[in-house]
Amino acid sequence: MHDKRLLLSPGRTAAPEHQATTPNPRENLSFSTMAGKKVLIVYAHQEPRSFNATLKNVAVEELSKQGCSVTVSDLYAMGFEPRATRIDITGSLSNPESFNYGVETHEAFKKGTLSSDIVAEQKKVQEADLVIFQFPLYWFSVPAIMKGWMDRVLCQGFAFDIPEFYDSGLLKKKLALLSLTTGGVASMYTKAGANGDFRYFLWPLQHGTLHFCGFKVLAPQVSFAPEYSSEEERKAMVASWAQRLKSLWQEKPIQCLPPWYFEQ
Amino acid sequence: MHDKRLLLSPGRTAAPEHQATTPNPRENLSFSTMAGKKVLIVYAHQEPRSFNATLKNVAVEELSKQGCSVTVSDLYAMGFEPRATRIDITGSLSNPESFNYGVETHEAFKKGTLSSDIVAEQKKVQEADLVIFQFPLYWFSVPAIMKGWMDRVLCQGFAFDIPEFYDSGLLKKKLALLSLTTGGVASMYTKAGANGDFRYFLWPLQHGTLHFCGFKVLAPQVSFAPEYSSEEERKAMVASWAQRLKSLWQEKPIQCLPPWYFEQ
Repeated sequence: MHDKRLLLSPGRTAAPEHQATTPNPRENLSFSTMAGKKVLIVYAHQEPRSFNATLKNVAVEELSKQGCSVTVSDLYAMGFEPRATRIDITGSLSNPESFNYGVETHEAFKKGTLSSDIVAEQKKVQEADLVIFQFPLYWFSVPAIMKGWMDRVLCQGFAFDIPEFYDSGLLKKKLALLSLTTGGVASMYTKAGANGDFRYFLWPLQHGTLHFCGFKVLAPQVSFAPEYSSEEERKAMVASWAQRLKSLWQEKPIQCLPPWYFEQ
Repeated sequence: MHDKRLLLSPGRTAAPEHQATTPNPRENLSFSTMAGKKVLIVYAHQEPRSFNATLKNVAVEELSKQGCSVTVSDLYAMGFEPRATRIDITGSLSNPESFNYGVETHEAFKKGTLSSDIVAEQKKVQEADLVIFQFPLYWFSVPAIMKGWMDRVLCQGFAFDIPEFYDSGLLKKKLALLSLTTGGVASMYTKAGANGDFRYFLWPLQHGTLHFCGFKVLAPQVSFAPEYSSEEERKAMVASWAQRLKSLWQEKPIQCLPPWYFEQ
């Protein structure tokens, strides 16, 4: 049986140095070239005409134009399963007497007996240099369908292990970026606003999830209140995202630690 | 067609004052009596022999003993649907050209055309004086199946409206409490620990979700690392929860604002 641990092999060929567009790459956390880079966009919106869809489409277009290879996991269109259940393990359980999802999926990962939908997503993550999450904020977090992607795909053995977590997380060669839309306007997401600083709600996602798995986290792309914006303002938000994508590979990840979230 | 707005009517009879067990109830946010109170436990664990199941069972037993009426929504056993989709609206859409989940469920709530599983959960919430969420922490948050419960059940018109949110939220007469288990030990969830203070990850759930809907939030019950604990330690955690439940109705809600989360 195929050993899923092979997915962890760093065997993929890196883009050759001579493709560098900057003569002196500042640090090994930022990529100096884009051509040949692989991007996975995990996307959660029900409506192809939505603002979130536009942001996703712009990212596909811009990154493809750069020569990146872009894959989209369109979670609603896929009918992605968010529930973490026994069905996720196709073989026998190590302890059928008392089902422990974390323990069993860790074992199943090692034995290659995770369900095929999880394996398919893990393969996409493994191949990606950058994972972008595109979603509307639901209750200060990702929609449940995307939470389910995190719960099921980022299992022990694949995304982290003990003690391979945080800076040693198994996905530490990769970048991640949250691109989200909010219901409320920007002023509500400030320290003085009713919703508090928008960085507060990013903590469980960026630190507790992405950083835990080792991802280097790029600054979030927050598009505030597209539903309350004019067509012109919405276009400006899309243009700003497209513009940012042009130099995304030169960005330095954030310092994904408490000061970034709570002391700015 | 039944107007779901009736669910918002404050017509339910309150427990008569003479049942008070304390002569001078300190404030109207805390309940002075328990008999006759209604409790909903929203529970997310796959395994009836799990530690989470034990905590849930103890709550059912203790609260029932007090004379409370307890309802459990066992999400995995119910096969609860976490995905927010078109299926949640049984009638026609107000804008079929571009599906907007928030707008359409708000309209469907008003018209009484939400799917029956959502209506059933809303009825349980509407009847409850206290909602307890019992879950294992998944990625610094609730498991996707419980996130889906929040995404789908707490819709506009039912749980909040504009401007009925936060202290004016439509569920403001109710209490809520998160009872959760962690993977990591307590020392990891401190300001100096790798996971940061456990209050940080509670912000989106307690403030962004529960407080937004008006709930008065009781202090969380955090059972740290049952999997790394001895049988004796686990028993002590269960006993501590059972003990707390005896005087839960006299508790004062927390001040669900940034200082509680970030300045302790």
